[in-house]
Amino acid sequence: MTRGDIQYDLTAAVEIIRVRNLEKNKETDRVVLETPLTIFLNDYEFITLLCSPDKLGYLAVGFLRSEGLIEGAADIEKIDVDGEKGLVYVKTVANDDLINKLYGKRMITSGCGKGSLFFNALDSLQSKRIESPLQVKAEEILKLVGAVQDKALLFKSTGGVHSAALAERDQILFYSEDIGRHNAVDKIVGECILKDISLEDKILLTSGRISSEIVIKGAKLGLPLIVSRSAPTSLAVELARETGITLVGFARGKRLNIYSHSVRIA
Amino acid sequence: MTRGDIQYDLTAAVEIIRVRNLEKNKETDRVVLETPLTIFLNDYEFITLLCSPDKLGYLAVGFLRSEGLIEGAADIEKIDVDGEKGLVYVKTVANDDLINKLYGKRMITSGCGKGSLFFNALDSLQSKRIESPLQVKAEEILKLVGAVQDKALLFKSTGGVHSAALAERDQILFYSEDIGRHNAVDKIVGECILKDISLEDKILLTSGRISSEIVIKGAKLGLPLIVSRSAPTSLAVELARETGITLVGFARGKRLNIYSHSVRIA
Repeated sequence: MTRGDIQYDLTAAVEIIRVRNLEKNKETDRVVLETPLTIFLNDYEFITLLCSPDKLGYLAVGFLRSEGLIEGAADIEKIDVDGEKGLVYVKTVANDDLINKLYGKRMITSGCGKGSLFFNALDSLQSKRIESPLQVKAEEILKLVGAVQDKALLFKSTGGVHSAALAERDQILFYSEDIGRHNAVDKIVGECILKDISLEDKILLTSGRISSEIVIKGAKLGLPLIVSRSAPTSLAVELARETGITLVGFARGKRLNIYSHSVRIA
Repeated sequence: MTRGDIQYDLTAAVEIIRVRNLEKNKETDRVVLETPLTIFLNDYEFITLLCSPDKLGYLAVGFLRSEGLIEGAADIEKIDVDGEKGLVYVKTVANDDLINKLYGKRMITSGCGKGSLFFNALDSLQSKRIESPLQVKAEEILKLVGAVQDKALLFKSTGGVHSAALAERDQILFYSEDIGRHNAVDKIVGECILKDISLEDKILLTSGRISSEIVIKGAKLGLPLIVSRSAPTSLAVELARETGITLVGFARGKRLNIYSHSVRIA
């Protein structure tokens, strides 16, 4: 087993009643798995996410990175994944700083569900402006989108997941699927961290809508280009313009829209 | 102004570069608005959600209900909506109990973003089993799905929102749109609470995937029937079976799948 890379079957069989043209039939269908993953950070029960149960180690590391609790692989001493029970134990190297961050976060969070969004939104304003000289052709982007589509097997069989991929101009490096848009991206982020791959000259492709949170995630990682088959929101466009990210939406077939920093698209 | 019912334009114009068949053109396009909404509960800054900026009062009330912090309209003394700044102030009647819940939540949350999911998942096990005698025909469900589709104008113009609706067998009562699946449902929940409409004999229609959280939300409200055009997850099916909810997915055109308690579908 490589760290975080256990592969499970990501669907389950269920008995359903299918109604078609007013006729009812009992059938067996497949639905996408959703399971809880609890992340322990230095023996502290940090969070429970609902996710598709693969790449749990990557997801945990990516989530901690997106939340600003770790910076890179050097911060991680050890990862233990209990895929059966849905538990990941992450032990970090530098403890004092982390504990301060945890307590800081807890105070800001103070409710439920609030922390990640708000804390990150503030963070992002302190992110460095992205200056990557990456240059990609529109047709290269559309080719990558097509390649991700070809990989999206779980979606085809269940209709219930998002996909994300990290790519260079001419090839896909990593690919992930999850019931959550954010999880799919965090799995990619975690894989990059554990394999020591920089995101600063790469392309992130996502099947989902681009909201402000995805752009903030990208800005923190220095990602120069985010591509989606779907729509961006107003705040996502605004933040992409501010942080220096090239945002591409509705990339399908032979067309795409460029919402910011079009200079990177040849 | 009725409580929570301010209507804004939910899209913004942005300058984009549209690439079509390798030709670049500057154009003005519309993207869906995404704005922060901060909910104050008895002068306590409770949470900041990212949402589509309409029905903010409904969203706040629905969110507090879904989180188990209020039960109904009787718990609310006053709501003030500052749509301009994205602030909603909710003042409740019964303070002691609420404060206990808030502190209880804070302890369980303990990280960031965890609270809502985990707390609710525990809650749901204590929910009463849903015994509603509601009976609906498959063709009635498909007619309702079609009616929601007709209303989904914002989606058509921007491709970036989810819709939700509350219906009786033969008509849609309330309709909402939001960039977030959960927000769209919470806007409906809030509207029901403020208009004193019971959900226990109604149908919830959603454009989004059905994950466990949507089923848990429904179970707490006594909703007998949840319908989606998209896929459910394994955990959603499991929880629907346990709590007594009829779950219908892939309701499109002349077909639909019944995942649980098919006895309500004639």
